[in-house]
Amino acid sequence: MTNSKEVFRSGPYADFMAQGVKVGSILYISGQVGMDAAGSIPATMAEQTVQAYANIRAVLAEVGASMDNIVDETFLVTSVEETHENLEAVFGARAEAYGKIPEVTQTLIGVAGLLLPELKLEIKCIAHL
Amino acid sequence: MTNSKEVFRSGPYADFMAQGVKVGSILYISGQVGMDAAGSIPATMAEQTVQAYANIRAVLAEVGASMDNIVDETFLVTSVEETHENLEAVFGARAEAYGKIPEVTQTLIGVAGLLLPELKLEIKCIAHL
Amino acid sequence: MTNSKEVFRSGPYADFMAQGVKVGSILYISGQVGMDAAGSIPATMAEQTVQAYANIRAVLAEVGASMDNIVDETFLVTSVEETHENLEAVFGARAEAYGKIPEVTQTLIGVAGLLLPELKLEIKCIAHL
Repeated sequence: MTNSKEVFRSGPYADFMAQGVKVGSILYISGQVGMDAAGSIPATMAEQTVQAYANIRAVLAEVGASMDNIVDETFLVTSVEETHENLEAVFGARAEAYGKIPEVTQTLIGVAGLLLPELKLEIKCIAHL
Repeated sequence: MTNSKEVFRSGPYADFMAQGVKVGSILYISGQVGMDAAGSIPATMAEQTVQAYANIRAVLAEVGASMDNIVDETFLVTSVEETHENLEAVFGARAEAYGKIPEVTQTLIGVAGLLLPELKLEIKCIAHL
Repeated sequence: MTNSKEVFRSGPYADFMAQGVKVGSILYISGQVGMDAAGSIPATMAEQTVQAYANIRAVLAEVGASMDNIVDETFLVTSVEETHENLEAVFGARAEAYGKIPEVTQTLIGVAGLLLPELKLEIKCIAHL
């Protein structure tokens, strides 16, 4: 039994995972963090938010999609307190990434850790094309 | 490239997120917590479970769906220990919300934090219509 | 409003949840842990990884699917540090379970707890048929 998945490997850890997998009209996107292609991680939550959405847009672009195609978002943070303290900056950066009030579901979760200790957030999205 | 998503904004934080997004036959629902429309959060896990499912049913009702339509559930708790201690009450409330043995997948995860410190659980569902 | 879901209850906790729910061409799979059918939990992360994927394959087999059908994976670990320390063993076991470089998205999350204290990881997958 085979599906028709298309696998998008650009991005880090290509030997372990894809950054995006498209099957039918659904594009699953791996959780994206605030690290750029050179491995650099900015210091603040707001900057990491900007970078994470830039990474999400890069995956979307591989199938000709945009932020409008995102339907579901899980927003994982290492500190809910720090999120509250930076709410305007973080959600401002998010609104700017979407270009409008986001038309997506969102689930905010405080996690015990992410892949690297410098990371403050990870954003996991599902898009429909 | 555009999809046909329908966005349901009733509920809190409407400037940041939708409580439900329907695309094709899939309804993504934002993680729901034990807070009612007036912002009140009951004290116990079982009561918060009842309220969270009431919130989920409210989103389902917007598309004419019911708990039968839920297919996948992620059950996020701030304390696995407290979940074990209240297992009968919490899972009893859940069974009552479904009206029968739930016909859904479930993943239970202990999280480091939720949006507000009073919250003991959050339930994230995907429904198919 | 009813969907056409098929519910697969083999596995533990059948009174609370299904291990798999198929609707259309999507198979949602409950998060699987490193516990075998007899309730035994091996000691190491790598062994638990092997067992968790064996459990995932068992659910896939109920609909005639294989690891090739997995499109999205959330890899929940109780210790990111321990994951880094055992990276080759854990991701080696994972590559062996897939039989090749996995053609899936992956999101790695450090969680505060799983269902039982002996559990070091849980793997939540979505498959498309």
